[in-house]
Amino acid sequence: MPVNLAPIDPSLLFPVAGVEIGIASAGIKKVGRRDTTIFTIAAGARVAGVFTLNRFCAAPVRLCQEYLAANNEIRALVINTGNANAGTGLDGLARAEKICAAAAEQLGINTQQVLPFSTGVILEPLPFEKIIDALPAAKADLSPANWAQAAEAIMTTDIAPKATSKQISIAGKTVTVTGIAKGSGMIHPNMATMLGFVATDAAISQELLQTMLKRAADLSFNSITVDGDTSTNDSYIAIATGQAGNPEITNANNADYLALQAAIEEVSHFLAQAIVRDGEGATKFMTIKVEGGASYEECKAVGYAIGRSPLVKTAFFASDPNLGRILAAIGYAGILDLDVDNIEVWLDDVLVAINGGRNPDYQESQGQAVMNQAEICITVKLNRGAQQATVWTCDFSYDYVKINADYRS
Amino acid sequence: MPVNLAPIDPSLLFPVAGVEIGIASAGIKKVGRRDTTIFTIAAGARVAGVFTLNRFCAAPVRLCQEYLAANNEIRALVINTGNANAGTGLDGLARAEKICAAAAEQLGINTQQVLPFSTGVILEPLPFEKIIDALPAAKADLSPANWAQAAEAIMTTDIAPKATSKQISIAGKTVTVTGIAKGSGMIHPNMATMLGFVATDAAISQELLQTMLKRAADLSFNSITVDGDTSTNDSYIAIATGQAGNPEITNANNADYLALQAAIEEVSHFLAQAIVRDGEGATKFMTIKVEGGASYEECKAVGYAIGRSPLVKTAFFASDPNLGRILAAIGYAGILDLDVDNIEVWLDDVLVAINGGRNPDYQESQGQAVMNQAEICITVKLNRGAQQATVWTCDFSYDYVKINADYRS
Repeated sequence: MPVNLAPIDPSLLFPVAGVEIGIASAGIKKVGRRDTTIFTIAAGARVAGVFTLNRFCAAPVRLCQEYLAANNEIRALVINTGNANAGTGLDGLARAEKICAAAAEQLGINTQQVLPFSTGVILEPLPFEKIIDALPAAKADLSPANWAQAAEAIMTTDIAPKATSKQISIAGKTVTVTGIAKGSGMIHPNMATMLGFVATDAAISQELLQTMLKRAADLSFNSITVDGDTSTNDSYIAIATGQAGNPEITNANNADYLALQAAIEEVSHFLAQAIVRDGEGATKFMTIKVEGGASYEECKAVGYAIGRSPLVKTAFFASDPNLGRILAAIGYAGILDLDVDNIEVWLDDVLVAINGGRNPDYQESQGQAVMNQAEICITVKLNRGAQQATVWTCDFSYDYVKINADYRS
Repeated sequence: MPVNLAPIDPSLLFPVAGVEIGIASAGIKKVGRRDTTIFTIAAGARVAGVFTLNRFCAAPVRLCQEYLAANNEIRALVINTGNANAGTGLDGLARAEKICAAAAEQLGINTQQVLPFSTGVILEPLPFEKIIDALPAAKADLSPANWAQAAEAIMTTDIAPKATSKQISIAGKTVTVTGIAKGSGMIHPNMATMLGFVATDAAISQELLQTMLKRAADLSFNSITVDGDTSTNDSYIAIATGQAGNPEITNANNADYLALQAAIEEVSHFLAQAIVRDGEGATKFMTIKVEGGASYEECKAVGYAIGRSPLVKTAFFASDPNLGRILAAIGYAGILDLDVDNIEVWLDDVLVAINGGRNPDYQESQGQAVMNQAEICITVKLNRGAQQATVWTCDFSYDYVKINADYRS
């Protein structure tokens, strides 16, 4: 079961003016599974995206990047689960393009105005005919109120759908930010999400939307890890329809920008953490704060070394305060001039290690009490600068192995 | 059970003239466990070492490096299992030093002529008094014939002891190379072994012994991974007693050097692979060959990305030819200008992927047949240069989680 992840309350997922969502069943992997989702986006909206850095990025990722670079008038998204269309070469590109063309024809737009997204198994041909056949049903299902259904439709090994929504006031107008994401395994930046979509009715320039999305992704989806595997398909898309009526945000230093940025970051954080809470086999949710670093990058490297260590993660699964494994991970994080004799490690408010060794006052019973919790904060103080970073991860359980050994069966 | 790792045959472990080994029980973690080993080394021998790059290197590693830098007359090793003396700060250094001093006194040598080694749990104070109390019994046990017993005594979570031996002829003299190692988890370079010791009676200069050891370690212990965790205590030590009677090897280009190097590399390879075969929870042994790279480093990076991917490793555990996960790992290995459309992936002699996509002639039944084996070779052809590297790893099973969740209990 996901760690402290409340079920979605659809009544709290606010529609975003200018965005409609429709879902259908293409039977990609399982008959009857609602596996195909389309978003339609009103004319005049801005769309920005950040994508996996995996060199084996999937065909839909390549097309998204190409279409976003070619024009600024994206009008639809088509998303399928059950097949990632990755490791599929030129044939995979052709299949993704056919889906975009078919959707464009039905919606009366151009092929390059449709962004494709796929998630699921890698190295198998995408059954594009099935998806195309499902498009009319998805179109017939279009509604501004389908966010919760879409969160469900894009899942793969996820146990729980992930969605959240927020409303703020900008220049006297109510602005909505609503997002969904999926992801549970093959989770490590960049990106960590596999797939995420956030939409707002705010008016904002294309350039600032991209800047805002990149920052939000770095602090959220690019700060989590489940298993250290970076997916081929990770995509995070922001849509800004401009229908809220606020004056277009064109200055990154004004209060409107900061308010929207805070809302998009809050939604991104929720979704990224939801992915960790629903990490494959997860029984614990760990926040790793690394403070006192000489740079953000080194803090993040330490956080990731801890967060992806199978030894640390199995110890947390066992609620075993075998905390030396945290020190070992700090030591191999790649900071060549790290003076380990300055390091402190805290487990919640228990000081475990100081001056590079065990805190003489530390009692194992204190560590055990924290380890028994489902949510744990590890704080590492490097004591060599003023920078900090936070990483979120989950533990490593029997069920992780079970889920990934059985994934295709 | 270890994957295709034959039990040690003590009759095939040749003693090395000038090296004696004694074992005793200090009761560090379990009463009666033979957990303390001493090596004595005849005067005139050369000793070289390579050590973990983990910044949280253990107290004994720090002392080894200091003593090896200070003098060239190492005469004894003291090794304990059950406690790593890591993450123990200045107090840990003092405890290790006390053990060296006590051993030196008993053997009539100086403290700095004794190298200490510890393996086991991190962040707990080393019970040095118990080890010191066991030294007389270990000394009384000294014998040139105790290699198999030592291989057993240095184990932690290892299921099987690891030892091998080889004899070659150099300049008309029989030269022996015998080595032991321990390690099963927290295995990732540098070093991968946790602890390894190789001894030869060959005569060789100090400088060339160090060069030879470094190369052998890079191609063996530094080319394996079990879980991606780099230990705090990894050490690989070479002893050359010079008692075989060959003329001292002082030239890296002559046949004597190459013959000894080949023997030390063969012993190192066997030991490193034995660690993988006995990897925690391992049910499969995988060789990952990466060919056609622009550099050795990038080939190794690809090999390690595959070899440490939990998704790849769980798929192999399940004998599931879910080979897209291999492509994903290649893609995130960090080669920024990698052209994935040139890549081939082979599973033994089955061509799985070509031109960055699935081989059209590939049948899943072919992949399944290979996956059902206990030993599998993955070959990746990058087709962008002439370099290659090989990495060895094992699969990721329920038992890995079980072993590491229960390690301290």
